[in-house]
Amino acid sequence: MKETFIKELVKAELKNPIMIEGLPGLGLVGKIATRYLIKQLKAQKFAYLYSPHFPYFVLVSKKGSVRLLRGAFYFWKNEKGENDLILFTGDSQAQTIEGQYEISSRILDFAQHYNVKLVITIGGYRVETKDKPKVVAAATNQNLLDRALRAEAMISPMGSPIVGTAGLILGLAPFRKIDALCLLGETRGYLPDPKAAKSVLEVLLKILGVNVDLSGLDEEIAKADSMVARLQKIEERRALQAEEIRREEDKKITYIS
Amino acid sequence: MKETFIKELVKAELKNPIMIEGLPGLGLVGKIATRYLIKQLKAQKFAYLYSPHFPYFVLVSKKGSVRLLRGAFYFWKNEKGENDLILFTGDSQAQTIEGQYEISSRILDFAQHYNVKLVITIGGYRVETKDKPKVVAAATNQNLLDRALRAEAMISPMGSPIVGTAGLILGLAPFRKIDALCLLGETRGYLPDPKAAKSVLEVLLKILGVNVDLSGLDEEIAKADSMVARLQKIEERRALQAEEIRREEDKKITYIS
Amino acid sequence: MKETFIKELVKAELKNPIMIEGLPGLGLVGKIATRYLIKQLKAQKFAYLYSPHFPYFVLVSKKGSVRLLRGAFYFWKNEKGENDLILFTGDSQAQTIEGQYEISSRILDFAQHYNVKLVITIGGYRVETKDKPKVVAAATNQNLLDRALRAEAMISPMGSPIVGTAGLILGLAPFRKIDALCLLGETRGYLPDPKAAKSVLEVLLKILGVNVDLSGLDEEIAKADSMVARLQKIEERRALQAEEIRREEDKKITYIS
Amino acid sequence: MKETFIKELVKAELKNPIMIEGLPGLGLVGKIATRYLIKQLKAQKFAYLYSPHFPYFVLVSKKGSVRLLRGAFYFWKNEKGENDLILFTGDSQAQTIEGQYEISSRILDFAQHYNVKLVITIGGYRVETKDKPKVVAAATNQNLLDRALRAEAMISPMGSPIVGTAGLILGLAPFRKIDALCLLGETRGYLPDPKAAKSVLEVLLKILGVNVDLSGLDEEIAKADSMVARLQKIEERRALQAEEIRREEDKKITYIS
Repeated sequence: MKETFIKELVKAELKNPIMIEGLPGLGLVGKIATRYLIKQLKAQKFAYLYSPHFPYFVLVSKKGSVRLLRGAFYFWKNEKGENDLILFTGDSQAQTIEGQYEISSRILDFAQHYNVKLVITIGGYRVETKDKPKVVAAATNQNLLDRALRAEAMISPMGSPIVGTAGLILGLAPFRKIDALCLLGETRGYLPDPKAAKSVLEVLLKILGVNVDLSGLDEEIAKADSMVARLQKIEERRALQAEEIRREEDKKITYIS
Repeated sequence: MKETFIKELVKAELKNPIMIEGLPGLGLVGKIATRYLIKQLKAQKFAYLYSPHFPYFVLVSKKGSVRLLRGAFYFWKNEKGENDLILFTGDSQAQTIEGQYEISSRILDFAQHYNVKLVITIGGYRVETKDKPKVVAAATNQNLLDRALRAEAMISPMGSPIVGTAGLILGLAPFRKIDALCLLGETRGYLPDPKAAKSVLEVLLKILGVNVDLSGLDEEIAKADSMVARLQKIEERRALQAEEIRREEDKKITYIS
Repeated sequence: MKETFIKELVKAELKNPIMIEGLPGLGLVGKIATRYLIKQLKAQKFAYLYSPHFPYFVLVSKKGSVRLLRGAFYFWKNEKGENDLILFTGDSQAQTIEGQYEISSRILDFAQHYNVKLVITIGGYRVETKDKPKVVAAATNQNLLDRALRAEAMISPMGSPIVGTAGLILGLAPFRKIDALCLLGETRGYLPDPKAAKSVLEVLLKILGVNVDLSGLDEEIAKADSMVARLQKIEERRALQAEEIRREEDKKITYIS
Repeated sequence: MKETFIKELVKAELKNPIMIEGLPGLGLVGKIATRYLIKQLKAQKFAYLYSPHFPYFVLVSKKGSVRLLRGAFYFWKNEKGENDLILFTGDSQAQTIEGQYEISSRILDFAQHYNVKLVITIGGYRVETKDKPKVVAAATNQNLLDRALRAEAMISPMGSPIVGTAGLILGLAPFRKIDALCLLGETRGYLPDPKAAKSVLEVLLKILGVNVDLSGLDEEIAKADSMVARLQKIEERRALQAEEIRREEDKKITYIS
């Protein structure tokens, strides 16, 4: 394998498809959101993306079966609307600069192949807040951005760069005459963040005019919250102990002087 | 040299060959096991693999002769069984991500060229145990995995990834319609571990239905054990000295306060 | 995108054009100088350079629009003189060695395409001085260097190497029968340094025989100076506090002994 | 520039040429030795090697002229002997693994082009001795190695690997049916080591049956020796001061307890 390539499993007939992309990144926001959509919509897998720029290991299932790292494309036939969906997620981002550009280009090749006119990429946006995560939007054109703002996304106040595939797809899409929108959920980014993913999905579904029950994420959110709480307790205990040790040492020094 | 290539030394006529792969890795398990088999079976060298992704130095023999880092393919004609063997080992793994994918692909090119239907890769699996090393198996299909389990391998309880060529070959084999099985011997991984290699060979030989005397490894195992014991003594002495120094310093501090 | 490429926006008719190159580097001297020239001359953008060797993120404007990192070519029609100008600046340098050579080569392709006979590259030169920054020159031939010296540039006393695109263009230009001159403004290099950029522009404009009002840089210089002053105060306060802590500790030790 | 390439300056007519290679490496032994030979033999430059795998800067002369990093080929017509010489040295080694293999291959392309049957590479061999540096030899065949041993080289007692171009050329030469010998001068490797270079040249000249006055290196050796002496004094003074500080602190602690 010398280059990133896509292997089609079945041929899909799609009506004005919109592509959704969400690879692992900050807080796993893109991956959690995209996987949830795939599951809820019962989207059908129809192609894999393989790349020599992914890390050089293979995954082993609990049953002992093995597979390469990969990305996967799913489609969903929208019975009630104008746009079918192509959803893309995967195990990893590319590990080199040139690999990042190559994989983003290959995803857009596939979008073009299916005559996609709009790609929406999903990711995380690092902030230190504990409020309900806001959703930051950026786009290749103003109309598209306005659609996101009407769906309650906001513009990044700082204009910070978007790193990785979710960003590069927006940078490369105009060369293919494809519009692209990026939705980033605010996240502290340390741990998988289903709350940020839910925020992004709320905006995304409004934009798409698609109904998906998001309550299934609440269990994951509860788990993540309790994980955060546990880690905080550990952290606080550690800080207390460090504090005590410092005080003990201060006593000795005070004795001395 | 711009790409990995294979140089055939002689043409072999092989009957339903199975390929065994074992490059250096954790505890050198793959290399020790494969080299032992080659030696015991008096397998014949018939091809080299060279790559610009190996480290950029050459090896010097005790007699002052020089050679590139390389992999080597050996074959063994199985007089009593159905499957001849191709055995592959070498000096090093690839040093870059893309090189890892390239070398694994080239090995599979060679397997295809000889109409190999099954590749078995060997490596180490990191654990902190001192018990007799178990053998962890993973495979590209269930039948194959069952064969390994019947030969007393076990499934990885954690489903941890398999890094390097031993893993990537399993990931890439299905694209060539080749089955592949990976056998990993439990090892602490710091030092060459012939004990883990022996455990893997016991499982491998059962699977292959081939008889090889493994007692020749026992001398290496004894050497490795005494090396480990020596290192532990050094480690313990160091810990004791550090302890003493700490106690001396504690005395001073106690005096002070 | 597998390779660096240039996308022309409009076709320009240029008369004996000289190319000026200034990418971000030490003290951002090259970029500040080139951007200022572009603005003052109202030069017209006519081509972009894109590369998979730039960092793998995209820039987001305050309005939420997105673009790839890129370089940009501008031209200026010189009504009063013999030479039109092509000005090149951009967001970033290449991130890999091979990328650096590739981008510099691509810039020279474009120069050749427009029949450029002279390229002048701009950058920073690290020194620890606070005097008015001098301008160090290096060139592919003696005549060219003499022109720079008559314009009050000086030769580097140390003969230190020139790193990055500003250097490689000089190294590669002779293969295209293009002359090239490099002008480096002395800078401490930590912060954007418009003062160094102004020094370079004074020399450059003399060489080109072009008049551009440089007073517009003075405001930026004032800002940068006050930034430096502020950072110095912070630094001094930190040093004082550290000093005090040390003295406090010394007292204790003196008590003890 | 996408690949390493060689630019011929003049066409040489050479009689059974032997190629000598010496790039910068441990103690600069290879470069010092080869440059000295070139100077003493008044060898004539006839080709350059350029590569995008060299570092991405350019060199500036004291006069302000600029050039790419490069390698250079020289030839010497041997009036009294059977073999003319091609001598190769340069500014740098390749910066990446793949670049190392590419540059070594390109040097051998050039050797083949001139029908070279023997390449001798020169480098340093790290030891901590202060004795007269010995010369370690390794070769692609036994005859060649014997020639070196008769010229008072020795075989490496440890069989340690040879890193970089001096090694890879030996590894790659057999693919071209070229014999290759490597001569490594013992050096501590920290500083330019003309003494090691002289040792290598003594062996080399015996092998070649060529007379070159090596006394010109003695001045450089004297300079290097005094540099080493100076650095040692600095080092010793530092050690003394550190010792004193430790003793002062010990006193305080003794007081306390």
